[in-house]
Amino acid sequence: MTSRDGFTWTPSDGLKPGVPSLGVISPSSNISSTQVEYDVIVIGAGYCGLTAARNAALDGLKVLLLEGRDRIGGRSWSSNIGGYPFEMGGTWVHWGQSNSWREITRYRMEKDVEMSFDFAKGVKHFELNTPESSVTMTHDDEDILLDSALKKFTNIDGFYGRKTIPLPYTTFHQPSSIPLDSLSALDRINEIADTLSPQERAVLEASILLASGGTLETTSFHEFMHWWAMCGYTYQGWLDMLITWKFRDGQSTFARRFFDEALATKRLSYAFNTPVQHISTSPSAVEITSRSNTTYRALRAICTIPLNVLSDIKFTPPLPTGKQAAIAIGHVNQTVKVHAEVSNKDLRSWTGINYPNELHYAIGDGTTPAGNTHIVCFGGQNRHMDPEVDVDRTKRAVSSLFNPGNYAGQNVQIERLVFHNWSKDEFAKGAWFFAPPGLLSEHLDDMRGRHGNVVFANSDWALGWRSFIDGAIEEGTRAELEVREEVVGLRGVKQKL
Amino acid sequence: MTSRDGFTWTPSDGLKPGVPSLGVISPSSNISSTQVEYDVIVIGAGYCGLTAARNAALDGLKVLLLEGRDRIGGRSWSSNIGGYPFEMGGTWVHWGQSNSWREITRYRMEKDVEMSFDFAKGVKHFELNTPESSVTMTHDDEDILLDSALKKFTNIDGFYGRKTIPLPYTTFHQPSSIPLDSLSALDRINEIADTLSPQERAVLEASILLASGGTLETTSFHEFMHWWAMCGYTYQGWLDMLITWKFRDGQSTFARRFFDEALATKRLSYAFNTPVQHISTSPSAVEITSRSNTTYRALRAICTIPLNVLSDIKFTPPLPTGKQAAIAIGHVNQTVKVHAEVSNKDLRSWTGINYPNELHYAIGDGTTPAGNTHIVCFGGQNRHMDPEVDVDRTKRAVSSLFNPGNYAGQNVQIERLVFHNWSKDEFAKGAWFFAPPGLLSEHLDDMRGRHGNVVFANSDWALGWRSFIDGAIEEGTRAELEVREEVVGLRGVKQKL
Repeated sequence: MTSRDGFTWTPSDGLKPGVPSLGVISPSSNISSTQVEYDVIVIGAGYCGLTAARNAALDGLKVLLLEGRDRIGGRSWSSNIGGYPFEMGGTWVHWGQSNSWREITRYRMEKDVEMSFDFAKGVKHFELNTPESSVTMTHDDEDILLDSALKKFTNIDGFYGRKTIPLPYTTFHQPSSIPLDSLSALDRINEIADTLSPQERAVLEASILLASGGTLETTSFHEFMHWWAMCGYTYQGWLDMLITWKFRDGQSTFARRFFDEALATKRLSYAFNTPVQHISTSPSAVEITSRSNTTYRALRAICTIPLNVLSDIKFTPPLPTGKQAAIAIGHVNQTVKVHAEVSNKDLRSWTGINYPNELHYAIGDGTTPAGNTHIVCFGGQNRHMDPEVDVDRTKRAVSSLFNPGNYAGQNVQIERLVFHNWSKDEFAKGAWFFAPPGLLSEHLDDMRGRHGNVVFANSDWALGWRSFIDGAIEEGTRAELEVREEVVGLRGVKQKL
Repeated sequence: MTSRDGFTWTPSDGLKPGVPSLGVISPSSNISSTQVEYDVIVIGAGYCGLTAARNAALDGLKVLLLEGRDRIGGRSWSSNIGGYPFEMGGTWVHWGQSNSWREITRYRMEKDVEMSFDFAKGVKHFELNTPESSVTMTHDDEDILLDSALKKFTNIDGFYGRKTIPLPYTTFHQPSSIPLDSLSALDRINEIADTLSPQERAVLEASILLASGGTLETTSFHEFMHWWAMCGYTYQGWLDMLITWKFRDGQSTFARRFFDEALATKRLSYAFNTPVQHISTSPSAVEITSRSNTTYRALRAICTIPLNVLSDIKFTPPLPTGKQAAIAIGHVNQTVKVHAEVSNKDLRSWTGINYPNELHYAIGDGTTPAGNTHIVCFGGQNRHMDPEVDVDRTKRAVSSLFNPGNYAGQNVQIERLVFHNWSKDEFAKGAWFFAPPGLLSEHLDDMRGRHGNVVFANSDWALGWRSFIDGAIEEGTRAELEVREEVVGLRGVKQKL
């Protein structure tokens, strides 16, 4: 099946919208009547909504899952082009991520992961291209450079943040952590600028923007430190947790497990291609109205709509002012992720930064069925582009990651581009959550708060791996448990099987 | 409520069996008839059995939980003496442990943890006492010493095991990891002995035995490397994951959540004080017979009895030969864990090794309501003792951790001892699982295999945090899912709520 989402470009076919994915659901609905009263309506079929819907269905609740897209996965989904998965959004997983790894072992998928990096053969180097210089170094030297830069950036307390954020699940527990949220990444860089070499500063800025997808001014230093703490306060942990292990057959194989398990209960109703426009909560129930003006009723709703999209939804009664304030601020991540299939096999062991650039950070991520190297490239708000608008510009952004002098006689010919423009995606309006200064210290509780019979759940306001697939599952678990207890209380406990 | 398990000693009351615990279940049974046919009988109410029973009850199955003890928790439970929790067995948790942390966030207990260590005030030092010398050093120097020793021990591939065990959930995936299981810890020490200083060797041996509870000869080097890999291949990760964060109110507060949630479904029947003696599986069902000759029937059984105890159970038909072979080998962990309440407040920031000794590794772990320092001390098979047999010897083993010269004029007076003798515990026959050489590379699949309609689940053969609470939850999750699918298939899917 082919999703409406995403784009591909090849020399022969040019730019084409839509990408095949195992995550596309067909038929798009299994609802026969709109007169049903559900126990819970879950809005959104990303990992958070999938978790909530699956758990509710397993727990015996009558569930309706509504999704605007034609597919599951939300901001994490994989294409399968010629049997090869390109990850359009959230990609990497690790056993240090409790909720997602718990699901991976539960579905017995612990053998279904592989490393993105393969430094066994080929160029085996890292390129750092800046306006000032172009250097090539071994991956060992790359690690030394990044480790040094990140240590300087994070060493706020002599312990790389460990004393300030000892328990990252309660991130503002130590009073000394709160002022970090008043700082931007740029503020922190300015504090340590004298200690950074030009190369350190370039790789540091590129790494920060790889995490936040914003600009240095709009990136909360606290939120960066929260990520760092979650990764064990080390560069090695950062690599291990953030960018190493991915699903051999793509994220959508994982998301399907949730959906298929929920469906097997026969308690899951669903409707894809059904964007929600109005959410109304009364003392006893909720009413959810789609854009095509169909209204669905339930005792409770779990709304997994991302922070940046909530302003498009009408709520009756209006949302509390704290939540409205958080929505008005929004998150800052406008990451541009572009997959490039390039003809040079030796680039499998290549990594590179070209900073600043529309695409500033990239790694060799696989070998395609055609034998080409798959490079995954990241940009963001710093020099934002819409990759589908001017494909030649996008190709130049890819090509400029490579210093041609390094590959004399060896092509870096682009054979295919694959991407999803998350910034123009009306159901995402950005990539994974990343906080600007002030948002979380002032509004985390507001974002997590409920509104009448509507429970809000999204990785955007998870406690642990906020912004990650793991945080989505954390939040879906939390929301379903809250709703289940209420529904069971309302309906009474009955023999279920 | 007071459990039969465990012992306390005080100067005034002497040695007393039994310790109060929130984990004691009263009434001990809620069964009114033995004529019921259950969907599943779960044998054992440790975390594995609690997880399986809870999930099965939530999934709508009719569950019977049988337990030989008077309490939940198995090898992890806390006393509460004067409101202070002493952890009798498994203690520490971390957000890098996926299954347990998933449950901690699910139960919203992420704020209910605290650090064992508090180096803020008091002696702030580490003592290393050996037959050759007694030295006192700062905790920074302790870390440098242990880090150096562990790096030498684990650096089998230039990457501290990372190349050999890159994905610890599939621990034997790399062929180069298998030969490690033929080595004992002593074999590996002999390989690097020339590189170790006497102090490094002492702390290394004490650390290995702290993990394994066996002897250096009976400790599989591979299993140690598996732990090391799970901890992120670093000493800091080792500390963080293994011995840092514990429940402020004790493990039994966590275990209660599972039990209480299962009970609230009204689908959980249970009988404590009900040891199982016979497990019989037929093509369609199972029959479980208690020592008092009551027989219970179900479609499936989940047997969570530890490896070292399985030989006490009669199986009809007999277990497969591979499983029998694993049981005959058994695991080697005979850890002795003794809590000592000592009068010196300054020891809150003390850690120490006295090696070799009946108790060779200890840390200041808290301040009791009386204002004394709580020290937790570990010994094992290396110089095994039964702490209740000769309390004076046990007290000497505690006292000998301290060089009296360091505390001139300051008492290390023992005000209380609390412990559980896991070696003499008929339902444990040892502490957490630790493998001798050969057991896992030859028999891991045997241990994990089922027998007719009996599914075997225990942290002893988990894939990830094997031996840990996390592994117990991993295994309970796996087993329940397997059983649920079969029961639903047999009975048909029905509306549950």
